[in-house]
This record gives sequence, C-alpha cells and structure tokens, in this order.
Amino acid sequence: MDMPGLSSDVLERFAAIVGPANVLRSAEDIAPRLVENRGLYRGASPMILKPGSTREVADILQLATETRTPIVPQTGNTGLVGGQVPRESGTDLILSLERMNRILDVDPVANVLAAEGGAILAEVQHAAESVQRLFPLSLGSEGSCRIGGNLSTNAGGTAVLAYGNMRQLCLGLEVVLPTGEIWDGMRRLKKDNTGYDLRDLFIGAEGTLGIITGAVLKLFPQPVGRQVALAGLTSPADALRLFEKASNLCGTSLTGFELMPRLGVEFTTRHIEGVRDPLSEPHPWYALIDISTSDSAETAETMVHALLEWGLETGLVRDAVIANSVAQQTALWHMRESMSDAQKPEGGSIKHDVSVPVSSIPRFMEAADAAVMGAVPGARICAFGHLGDGNIHYNISQPVGADKAAFLARWREVNEIVYGIVLSMNGSISAEHGIGQLKRDELARIRPTIEIDLMRRIKRVFDPANIMNPGKVIAID
Amino acid sequence: MDMPGLSSDVLERFAAIVGPANVLRSAEDIAPRLVENRGLYRGASPMILKPGSTREVADILQLATETRTPIVPQTGNTGLVGGQVPRESGTDLILSLERMNRILDVDPVANVLAAEGGAILAEVQHAAESVQRLFPLSLGSEGSCRIGGNLSTNAGGTAVLAYGNMRQLCLGLEVVLPTGEIWDGMRRLKKDNTGYDLRDLFIGAEGTLGIITGAVLKLFPQPVGRQVALAGLTSPADALRLFEKASNLCGTSLTGFELMPRLGVEFTTRHIEGVRDPLSEPHPWYALIDISTSDSAETAETMVHALLEWGLETGLVRDAVIANSVAQQTALWHMRESMSDAQKPEGGSIKHDVSVPVSSIPRFMEAADAAVMGAVPGARICAFGHLGDGNIHYNISQPVGADKAAFLARWREVNEIVYGIVLSMNGSISAEHGIGQLKRDELARIRPTIEIDLMRRIKRVFDPANIMNPGKVIAID
Repeated sequence: MDMPGLSSDVLERFAAIVGPANVLRSAEDIAPRLVENRGLYRGASPMILKPGSTREVADILQLATETRTPIVPQTGNTGLVGGQVPRESGTDLILSLERMNRILDVDPVANVLAAEGGAILAEVQHAAESVQRLFPLSLGSEGSCRIGGNLSTNAGGTAVLAYGNMRQLCLGLEVVLPTGEIWDGMRRLKKDNTGYDLRDLFIGAEGTLGIITGAVLKLFPQPVGRQVALAGLTSPADALRLFEKASNLCGTSLTGFELMPRLGVEFTTRHIEGVRDPLSEPHPWYALIDISTSDSAETAETMVHALLEWGLETGLVRDAVIANSVAQQTALWHMRESMSDAQKPEGGSIKHDVSVPVSSIPRFMEAADAAVMGAVPGARICAFGHLGDGNIHYNISQPVGADKAAFLARWREVNEIVYGIVLSMNGSISAEHGIGQLKRDELARIRPTIEIDLMRRIKRVFDPANIMNPGKVIAID
Repeated sequence: MDMPGLSSDVLERFAAIVGPANVLRSAEDIAPRLVENRGLYRGASPMILKPGSTREVADILQLATETRTPIVPQTGNTGLVGGQVPRESGTDLILSLERMNRILDVDPVANVLAAEGGAILAEVQHAAESVQRLFPLSLGSEGSCRIGGNLSTNAGGTAVLAYGNMRQLCLGLEVVLPTGEIWDGMRRLKKDNTGYDLRDLFIGAEGTLGIITGAVLKLFPQPVGRQVALAGLTSPADALRLFEKASNLCGTSLTGFELMPRLGVEFTTRHIEGVRDPLSEPHPWYALIDISTSDSAETAETMVHALLEWGLETGLVRDAVIANSVAQQTALWHMRESMSDAQKPEGGSIKHDVSVPVSSIPRFMEAADAAVMGAVPGARICAFGHLGDGNIHYNISQPVGADKAAFLARWREVNEIVYGIVLSMNGSISAEHGIGQLKRDELARIRPTIEIDLMRRIKRVFDPANIMNPGKVIAID
C-alpha cells in the first residue's frame, strides 16, 4: 500500500473543489463527526468536505484516487457499527452529503420520489405525505438520518414486514465511483432486466464501493385504516403463535409486529418521559401490533378485533389494549422506539442485532438466555424487536450494581456466546445495522472463504486505490 | 483468448464426471436443446451434460475453467433472448440441470421453500399449495421452466404487481462459480445486512457469473378471496386511469392489471381453442383485473364491484364482466396468456419487451404506434401486457398478405424505432426477458460506458477464463 498523501498541498486541492465556505478544518467543527452515537468508535480527520453537487463529489473522489487519500462518506452519522466514523489514523477525509439534501421531484401518479443522497428521511416522508402518498421507511433516527446512508446500510426499521427494507424501496440510484466516474442509474422502472444488478450491489455496501448521490424511491398509497394494539403475553412462543394468526388474518395489512419484554417496559416507564404501562397488570412479554388497510378503516378494525378476540379466547393473550386515538398509537410506538435509549441509565449494555428464521425465535431466546445468564449471572436481558422479520435486538444490561467497565470488557466474550447460537440456527450476526468496523473481523471469521473473497474481488475492481471508506465491511490487504 | 479445448480427450473427462448414462452425444438427442422457442437462435454443441449434484456441477466448471471450455447452462429452454442457446461455433457444452429437480423442503410456518435449480416452476407452486401456501411466480411456461432459469433471468410474469419478480421472491441461493468453487448462500432470513449483496448479482445474470444450483424461496398465505374481471375500454389512457383507481381502492390486493388490444382478442378467439370474447360488443382496449384478498372473500367482491361501478358511472368502462367461477377466471387469463401464441398464425411478428414509467404508457403507445405505422404501413400492432408494471409486450404482426421474410428482415429497423421512443422516456429495452444474445449489442450501445465497464469488471473477476455462458449479456474481449 502507498502511504496516504495528506500533505497540506493535497488538502488545499480538496478544499478548492468545494470552496472555502464548505470546508471544516477546526478541531471544534470536526469533533462531532468523529464519534458515533454509542461512543464505541472515535476517529480522527483533518478535514470535512461538503460538496454541493454530484460533479464536486466526482472531483473529490477522482483526486482521492489520484492521491490515494481515504474518503469516509457521512450522512446523518446515526449508524451503529462505526461505518461512518473515520479511522483513528487521522488519514481519512470526511465527505458530508449534508448540502445535497434536496427532494428533486415527487410524482404521485407514478408513485416515485427522487432525492439527493443527503435528503433527510423525515423530509422525504413529508414530501410523500404532501401528495397523499406514503414513503414507508421509518426509524427512530428519521429526523436526522439521510437517504444516502439509509441506502448504503440497507436500513430496515419498523415497517419492513409489509414494505420491505430500503433495498425493496429503491428503483434507481446515482453513484459516484471511487475513480470519480458517475453512474447514472436514476431509473424509475418497476421492471428492467438489463444486465447485472449494480443497484443492489451499492445498496448495503456501506459506502465502500462508491457514494450514493441520488435515488429514486417508491411511494405507496396512504393507508386509510390503521389500528395499533398492545397485547400482554406469557412467552416468545406465544408471541410467535399470535404472529402466525395475525399474518393469516391480515396478510399484507400486517405492517408491524414487535416483541418487547417486561424488563423493557419497566426501563421505558422508569426513564423515558411520557411513557406509561398501558395494561393494568404486568406481563412477561408484549406484542405491539400494527395493522394498516388500504380499502377501508373498518377492515383494520375488524382485523384487530378478530385477532385479539381469538387471542383472549384461546388464552394466548392475557390482556390487550387497542389505541383509540392517533396520540395513543404514537405513545405505544414511542415505548417500543425508546427501548434502546431506556437502557442507558441502567448502566452498560452489550448489544446484538441478530436475525434467525422467524419460526426459530423462541428456541433462540431460550438458548441465548440460558447461555448468557450462565456466563454473566444477574445480567438483565432486554431482547426486543421485529419478531415478524425474525430480527431481535438482543441487548443485555449489566447486573444491578456491577462495575460498568468490567461488564463492557466482556463484550466480545458475550458476542461469541450469542453469535454461536445465532449461527447454529443459520441466523445473521447483523440483521439491519450492517458490518462497519464493529463486525468486520467477525464476518470474515464466520463466512466461507469464497464469500469474503468474492467481496474483495468486487471491492478491488470498483476501488482500485482502496480509498472508499477503507477498513469497513471487509479488510483489503 | 486461448482456443477452446474440445479435443475428444477433454470431452471424455467431462463425460466421466456425470457418468455415461447422463451424457447426450447423438445429434438427435442434442438437437432440441440447440434451438429456442421462437427459432431466432440455433446453436451447435457436441455434448449435453446432466449432473446429478452440486458437486458434479462444481467438477464440470472446474474442468471447464482449466481447459477453457465454454459452458452454457440450460434449464427449461424457455428463454426468449437466446441466453440458453449455445453459440453457432459448436464449442459450447450444454449443462442441463434437469436431474437436479428436487423440492428440498417446504416450511409453512417460516413461509419458505427450498429447491434445487432444476425444479420445475409448476412443481414448486404445487408443493406450496400442498401446505396451503402460495408461491406467486406465474408464467405461461410454468409447466416446463425451472427455478434456476427463473432466477437467472429474474422472471416476472403476471403477479409482479403484488408480489414482485423473482428477485423479490428469493431469500437465498447456492451457486457454483465458474472456477468450480461453491457459494453456499442458502439463507432463510428476511433481514441480513452482512456485506455485499452477492445474491442479487447472480439473480438476473443469465448464467454468466455462475450456475444457480439451489434456492430458498418465499411463500405467502393463500388468498381467501379472488375476483377476476374484464373491462372494455376506449384507450390506454383510460386503462391507466382505471389502474390508478384500482390501486387506490385495492392497495396490495390488486394482484394483476393487464392491458389487451382488440386485435389481440381477435387473434386469440380466431386461433386459440376454447377462447371466446366474453363481452357482447367489441371494444378498442381491454383491462384484465385480478384482485386477491387475504382477510375474506367478501372484501375482493366489494372491491371489484366498487371499481367497475365507478368505471361504468364515469363512462371510463364501456362494458365489463366478472368471472363467476374458477373456470371463468382461468378462461380470462387463458386469453391473455395465449396472446403471443395467437400471433403465430398471423405471419411474422417483430417483438419488444419494454417498460416505461407507468404513467408514460399512453404517451409511449401513441408515439410508437405512429412511428411504426409510418415505417410499415399496414402493420398490425398487438401491444399487450403488464400495464401495472409499466411493462408492454409491444408486438407487431406483419401486414395482411405481406411477405413474411421481407417483414422480418426489418426487425432491427423496427427495433430502433421502438427503442428510440422507449429510451426517450427513460424506459427499458428489456423489462423481463433479459439480454441474452438478442439485445447484447443494443445494451452496450445505449448504456453509459461506465455501466458496461462495471459489468465487464465483475464478469472478469468472477469468471477469469470466460467460460460461463460466454457471448451472452456482455461481450468480453
């Protein structure tokens, strides 16, 4: 490998591309971009570049390849695996898409929306709403995360069950390649079988194959009926049976089915303002059920009542509440979405974003709980998430009164226990958060050599100078 | 390029891998595999290999890379662009997956089915039905096409509107690489963000990057309600308005919306046994509407009546019929699916499988009709297809009494006219049939250099000896 060329001369050439007003150089300005939300990764960088156009992004990457300068693309800086954080070496420049934040157009007849890579997710949602359409990607960080990052990480969120993740929500892309070439793939077609699927290669590549500067996204009709309910349950196995019944009753109208443990409900009612337990008695587990219908409001009502009546009659559901206003619907979701934040005041937490086949979830929970409690007596397991997708955020809070640092020092050890069980069930060690820095070496360890090798071959031909977000996803050389 | 090594010694080494019972060598045995359905491509090959396992496929490809012997994978031989036909050079061996046709397992709880690459589509559909599930891919050739081919061509068909094409229906793959390495990607996960999306790279690659030997497919609940209707209309613009109304009324319950011209109805009633015109008067255009509901049969009934009543009241729909039995539903679909075959007795036909943004369909039809009629007076345009996906099979039958060969000699000229209009509307020259040999050079001509170049780079690192279905999709060297 050549040494990176971060001479002041080279830095000036980068700065000249975007102009002085769009370069950040002071330690104070740069600091917030060097660390991610959890504080797991803290990097260094001499400069942040804020290009205003695809052409400027292309000029930056061309110069980066020429001078072998590593570039880290950053959008909302909300990633959870260190993919958007520069390395500690201080050799990486940050390229921020924050100025390229425009909605380019919204077409409610064709049901598409085009936006620049730096458009904020919430603004895309609002633009869709303004023409009576739905853009269904929904995440806790939607007020700050940006479309380019959502695509680069193939974001999931709470509506995957009905609408799919970001990969399924995208029709076309514009990507600047590491060499500075621009690929215009901004297509708006539902069907297009013309050669290799480059679009899906860039989606989920975490900025290691190029920078997504624009996207054409799918819109959907706004649901006319919506019902949100919370059911108290005895076990994950019962939650799975309720999910199966809900799938059969509601089909694609079942837009969300989230699992939460009692501990998570306690954490949120204790620490998150405005959250209260909507059921009068505590229950070991809870299912948050979201039903959206496109034909009539009555259909959603009929569905939610049929489901809960069946659950109460069979004894599967111990108690349940149906939100009777939009405010109550929001409150139920707020509890679910605060679950991760609510762990913070409880001390250190070791987290896993895993998936297994949906039908294996109860077996996974049982095996993982036993193994973790054996290794860390007193650990408080707060496993919640998208049961309908087989995706559990298997989070573990430290034992009450334990030393936080000593607990967190066991991160890898606990990971290995949990991942071992996940892999024995043919699951995934990263269901939606991606690989980044956090799981890069683990991925190489668990996957067949040929798979990592194919990824490396692709990386090398797309990014011959290895300047695009190096050190993330896979190691090169 | 090295010369291909088709010495008899090399041929014997290939034959030994599968055993004498699984090699076809006589001209008579080989002949049916050298030509595709339309007769557009006719190739030559000294040998057909029928491996019985992934291991045998791997041994064949390893030997092929070692000896630089081109291999053409073939499943049901139903492709329409020459992708599965060996070249005329006689240097290509055919690898048929017909013996690897097993359904490996069906899991109605997890809603997945695993099958070998040679499993016939209809048998996959039946295996799903046997556990009260739906595998929604549906094509005219489903009795003979095979899953590996469906995946390699990213097949579409008549239910894409609600369920997506083959790409959306697949969770995992097993692929033998050109070097003989085996990639085991037979995952069953709805969410798995772990590195580059290799799966989607193989899907739609038309067998040029490897051979798909196994797949994990998604299953769905069987609809409980279904309604199929035929509406007589004045124009494609009216059909688009009816489609928009249907989308809003039915949401994801709208599983099919097909456009047909009067000429196509005449061709099918004239030439296809059992097809009759279900409406008493002729209409310039027809929409075939399929609604499937998962909550109750009544919902589908309510939807179809609401749609047609709205259409009749507004005058958009001139007349309509709702199928009142499964047999009538099948008959309406049979008319639509016979439309291509019904053109054969009418002489030569020049075909296009194009897509444009859905909202541009009326404008496309108008422009294309005018241009084609200007170039070929008397041409009989029979444009039909998946209006809801923006995908039109823009087929042109020769003028009555014209010379067939003279008409077909104008294939490229007519293509250029139609493709020019498609491209001016940012459409695709191959919506669902793929590139194969038929559109390879056209693709290279119309796409940006960087796009074809990226495909070539991928091809080279996956298939360094260029033995996998060479000459298809993109030209190498």
